[in-house]
Amino acid sequence: MTGQNTALLARIRIVLVETSHPGNIGGAARAMKTMGLNDLWLVNPKQFPSAEATVRASGADDVLRSANTVDSLEDALKGCAIVFGSTARPRHFDWRPFSPREAVGLGLDTLLSGGDIAIVFGRENSGLTNGELDLCHHAIHIPANELYSSLNLASAVQIVAYELRVQTLSNQNAGQPAIQDEAVEPVASHDELEGLYQHLEQALVRLGYLDPAIPGKLMSRLRKLFNRSILKRSELQILRGICAAIEKQSMK
Amino acid sequence: MTGQNTALLARIRIVLVETSHPGNIGGAARAMKTMGLNDLWLVNPKQFPSAEATVRASGADDVLRSANTVDSLEDALKGCAIVFGSTARPRHFDWRPFSPREAVGLGLDTLLSGGDIAIVFGRENSGLTNGELDLCHHAIHIPANELYSSLNLASAVQIVAYELRVQTLSNQNAGQPAIQDEAVEPVASHDELEGLYQHLEQALVRLGYLDPAIPGKLMSRLRKLFNRSILKRSELQILRGICAAIEKQSMK
Repeated sequence: MTGQNTALLARIRIVLVETSHPGNIGGAARAMKTMGLNDLWLVNPKQFPSAEATVRASGADDVLRSANTVDSLEDALKGCAIVFGSTARPRHFDWRPFSPREAVGLGLDTLLSGGDIAIVFGRENSGLTNGELDLCHHAIHIPANELYSSLNLASAVQIVAYELRVQTLSNQNAGQPAIQDEAVEPVASHDELEGLYQHLEQALVRLGYLDPAIPGKLMSRLRKLFNRSILKRSELQILRGICAAIEKQSMK
Repeated sequence: MTGQNTALLARIRIVLVETSHPGNIGGAARAMKTMGLNDLWLVNPKQFPSAEATVRASGADDVLRSANTVDSLEDALKGCAIVFGSTARPRHFDWRPFSPREAVGLGLDTLLSGGDIAIVFGRENSGLTNGELDLCHHAIHIPANELYSSLNLASAVQIVAYELRVQTLSNQNAGQPAIQDEAVEPVASHDELEGLYQHLEQALVRLGYLDPAIPGKLMSRLRKLFNRSILKRSELQILRGICAAIEKQSMK
């Protein structure tokens, strides 16, 4: 990942409102760090700092140490260009919340144009109040199972952080030439594949498996099968080796 | 969500191999259920059933109760059409693992054509062995922060389950009937593929191409090549026909 992406992800605030269980703060920090986020804001946490949070953070304690603890959601949102509030409800009055995928797409445009974004997560049991949701520009709803939508707070942060990371990375990749990675083995060229198919056909005829008088669709099916696999050059050489061995055996 | 989508999600197995901490099994069950999955397989869990697992499952104890505990990964994969193995490595030899998004897209095609899919997660500390990954048709890598990729097992399950749910739902929303397409040929099952690989190995030995004393990585490479291709049952039969012809010729 380039420094540019790191900088983009660093401009995303995760705001947790009145979290009851310090373990969930630690779990959220860990979830954030695995996805490259580090800007955590805590609005009136019930207990923080806490040993339990540090244990659950499991190495993401730097995120906990640099967390900002504030008294009001307004304070946590200062300076943000766009704010998303999470809700467990698939519909809010006549408002359809965004999915994480949609929300991140929208947030990314803001990030790229220089604005900071915040994602707000409410209390474990009761979420955000309507007043708090009013402070958010948009709502996000994770499309959980209607019959069991008991997403753990850290899991909800994990899903949103994952979307943020994936879309930020793929934004970088978009428009840039797919660089040939030196470590990746070259795939077989069209000509090499044609050479293989000829060799294979010849070997199958020798084997008595393919009757050149009534070839049917055999070669066409084998082509499709190998084409789908996107053969590497070295794999193609293995297959040609097998063809050569078949021909050699048939000479005996 | 319609019953049809429920049925699709029910055909997805989550397989946990040699999980050390029973709490993680509970967390994985909760993550699954929030996303509508319920088919959990445990390969040699260190401790199960366990009170800790039930506490962490937090209402998803039905998923734990119906979990299948087995002695080997092979047993957990019986009957599956497509198997994804998770890896923390962004690159496996010369193999680029799929992202969860790509993998689920691929898996969904198989689900829609009637095949069951499995996603395999390894040990908390060491993941899956190379032998276990060889039993998987494809690898999945969650694109975590290179500097801190310490994804909790339940979080990894959460991310993959989320992708499965979102893509399954959006497939429905896209207006495509999520029905078994008669025109789509069934893909070969895990068991059928294992049968092919045994037959192929035997044929290559007869051919003198594979020396059983020094097998090297030949079979592993051929497995990868054919797994990538996602063989249809009729294609697998062609390949077995070629193996049989090789054996027959070598008898002459």
